[in-house]
Amino acid sequence: MLKFTTHYFTMTETDALEYARTIPNFFPENASLICQEIGDGNMNYVFRIEDQDTKKSLIIKQAGPTARISDQFKLSTDRNRIETELLKLQNKLAPGLVPLIYHYDELMSCCVMEDLSDHQILRKALLEYKTFPLFSEHITTFLVNTLLLTSDVVLNHKEKKSLVKNFINPKLCEISEDLVYTEPFFDCKNNEIFPLTKAFAQAELWSDDAFRLETAKLKFEFMANAQSLIHGDLHTGSIFVTPQSTKIIDPEFGFYGPAGYDIGNVIANLIFAYLHADAEITDFIQKSKYLEWLTKTIKEIIDLFSLKFTASWQKHVTEPTANYPGFAEYYLSSILRDTAAVTGLELCRRIIGLAHVADITSIRNMNKRLRAEKIGLTMGKHFITNRTTIKSGQDFINVLTSTIAKITPLNTDI
Amino acid sequence: MLKFTTHYFTMTETDALEYARTIPNFFPENASLICQEIGDGNMNYVFRIEDQDTKKSLIIKQAGPTARISDQFKLSTDRNRIETELLKLQNKLAPGLVPLIYHYDELMSCCVMEDLSDHQILRKALLEYKTFPLFSEHITTFLVNTLLLTSDVVLNHKEKKSLVKNFINPKLCEISEDLVYTEPFFDCKNNEIFPLTKAFAQAELWSDDAFRLETAKLKFEFMANAQSLIHGDLHTGSIFVTPQSTKIIDPEFGFYGPAGYDIGNVIANLIFAYLHADAEITDFIQKSKYLEWLTKTIKEIIDLFSLKFTASWQKHVTEPTANYPGFAEYYLSSILRDTAAVTGLELCRRIIGLAHVADITSIRNMNKRLRAEKIGLTMGKHFITNRTTIKSGQDFINVLTSTIAKITPLNTDI
Repeated sequence: MLKFTTHYFTMTETDALEYARTIPNFFPENASLICQEIGDGNMNYVFRIEDQDTKKSLIIKQAGPTARISDQFKLSTDRNRIETELLKLQNKLAPGLVPLIYHYDELMSCCVMEDLSDHQILRKALLEYKTFPLFSEHITTFLVNTLLLTSDVVLNHKEKKSLVKNFINPKLCEISEDLVYTEPFFDCKNNEIFPLTKAFAQAELWSDDAFRLETAKLKFEFMANAQSLIHGDLHTGSIFVTPQSTKIIDPEFGFYGPAGYDIGNVIANLIFAYLHADAEITDFIQKSKYLEWLTKTIKEIIDLFSLKFTASWQKHVTEPTANYPGFAEYYLSSILRDTAAVTGLELCRRIIGLAHVADITSIRNMNKRLRAEKIGLTMGKHFITNRTTIKSGQDFINVLTSTIAKITPLNTDI
Repeated sequence: MLKFTTHYFTMTETDALEYARTIPNFFPENASLICQEIGDGNMNYVFRIEDQDTKKSLIIKQAGPTARISDQFKLSTDRNRIETELLKLQNKLAPGLVPLIYHYDELMSCCVMEDLSDHQILRKALLEYKTFPLFSEHITTFLVNTLLLTSDVVLNHKEKKSLVKNFINPKLCEISEDLVYTEPFFDCKNNEIFPLTKAFAQAELWSDDAFRLETAKLKFEFMANAQSLIHGDLHTGSIFVTPQSTKIIDPEFGFYGPAGYDIGNVIANLIFAYLHADAEITDFIQKSKYLEWLTKTIKEIIDLFSLKFTASWQKHVTEPTANYPGFAEYYLSSILRDTAAVTGLELCRRIIGLAHVADITSIRNMNKRLRAEKIGLTMGKHFITNRTTIKSGQDFINVLTSTIAKITPLNTDI
């Protein structure tokens, strides 16, 4: 259709419906299609198109040229290429754990992909206190396969360098550099800190030079350490789940960075779910059971990651130098160190910085929210400062439980 | 001229002379040009073209599609683009310290540059026991300007990422990964170790797992740490000198790697000059004076680098995170750690690996050569193993002098 082949424009629902008809071999000719824009992010348009007769459906995701809230905030539409190519690669490395890509259109900066409407966003599901017994199994397979198999220890060194080049992602890396590594660590005007928490951040983080120095080291490692092709934004809002299935979406922040970045993001966001449940669930037994499941899941993710990483290393690493005695343990240990650091960074930045998480902002009682934020920041600082000593699932849980025990519950209205 | 605009071919002296006439505004029309191929490397053709009347001259450097010794060894001609673009950038960052580029021709994979025939290759000059009082001043300016000013602490982060992309250099990085980081650390068939030294390498390096583990860590850092736009092959054969001038040539191995790589290469190759002079100069006073100058130069390079680095940091670093108290010291200290490590790697690989240095191979007495190689390898291991504690010029000199004192002079024929 000529309409979509001459120049880029942002599509309406009607355009997207027309566009869907151009995808070969998907919908029958003259299918009764309906289209709905379901995007809730700030940068992209997401259209769901369904055939009313067969119920067959697909998703069209189009990158906007500017942020949806303000056209002052220019964005590169190249992120749609990065997302599409990364989803295709991830589907080879970790089959079944990402949505399938049907089509990519460079001119329109859009991709057509599998509809996952039968899944639910993990963050939302956790706020409904649902459990997902297979999640730790699935996410650790995704993490090991995408992180280890794209690194220099497995991949042909020349192939790895061409991937580094292909996934240079300056615009989206800049967002992480600013929002994760810079703004949360001083009284920046872009921060949107809960007023009650500000004095705590000032006293505990912003005025602690030794702590801030550690965040600076991590920032420059994030920018220079081209270790693995990471997802780059692997919070619980980038994960679709059912009890049987896990699908990781939205890798538009992907680039070659520290492997621990993705793992740390998963862990920190499970901790946010924990802080939410701890503050909000009133029934003692329900709360204990749910926190126990979250604790078990966090612990399992670290320990299963380490186990599967080691097994995958034995299977895939043929690089002679990487097989020197002690190197696999050194390498895994450096990933776990970075995991602890990023867990801490994500905890701090989601409380202090521009982009908050519903797990915290939906805590209704102000004192409980304040307590949850103090716990998050205290833990965050601990994870960053003590990153070299936090290695096992139990080490991560110890930071969580000991910090919670330390921060006194405040008077509440409940 | 049509001849040079249709397809790539490797030029003869006659072709290069014709090619030189096509460079605009350099030679007068009908100038009496003469051309000589003066390349002594293995990968490129280097033509010097001179106008016999005016004595004006230029250099044409063409990348061959295969190594000159064997057409089995395929090379990417893209290295000529990398070399040209890097020389242009280095001339902006460190004016006067690299040859000027007059012209680049992508089709012919050649560049036309300033003739430096009035200069001498530093390695050769050092083997003639010449001194260059301005060398430490010049080389440290080059190192600080090219390394610090291309790093994330100074450069706009997006601009840095586009440079990373532009200087992805898989083929030439592979050579360093193999020849510097892999083959010297086991009994590899590609090594060309002096037979008398082999037992020593076996006992001291190849059978020491803890030491080999350190070399593996360094190898993966070399591949992943995109810190600075480095020269990548900064030995004394890549440096042209006169008493007044220093010109750094041949950056075809350039890519974003650890800043310490370049500094370590300079230091190690000065140590080779030291080992040569120590073995070959027979006159006691001449020897003492020459070793003293080399010692002073090595010490000055480390200490001047640190001083100028700190001054340049104060002038150029505006990144707020990089200005946290303690970060500049941490960053410099990590570069010096990598410098010590690469000094050690270069010492080992030039003695054990495929590519030797004339400083060692020209030592005529076998026992003296064996002793020089043992000193080099012992120092190499020490620099690698103790890299975190070697920070000042004096620290580097202490490794040199204490190792020499430890390795007993053998019976010699002199």
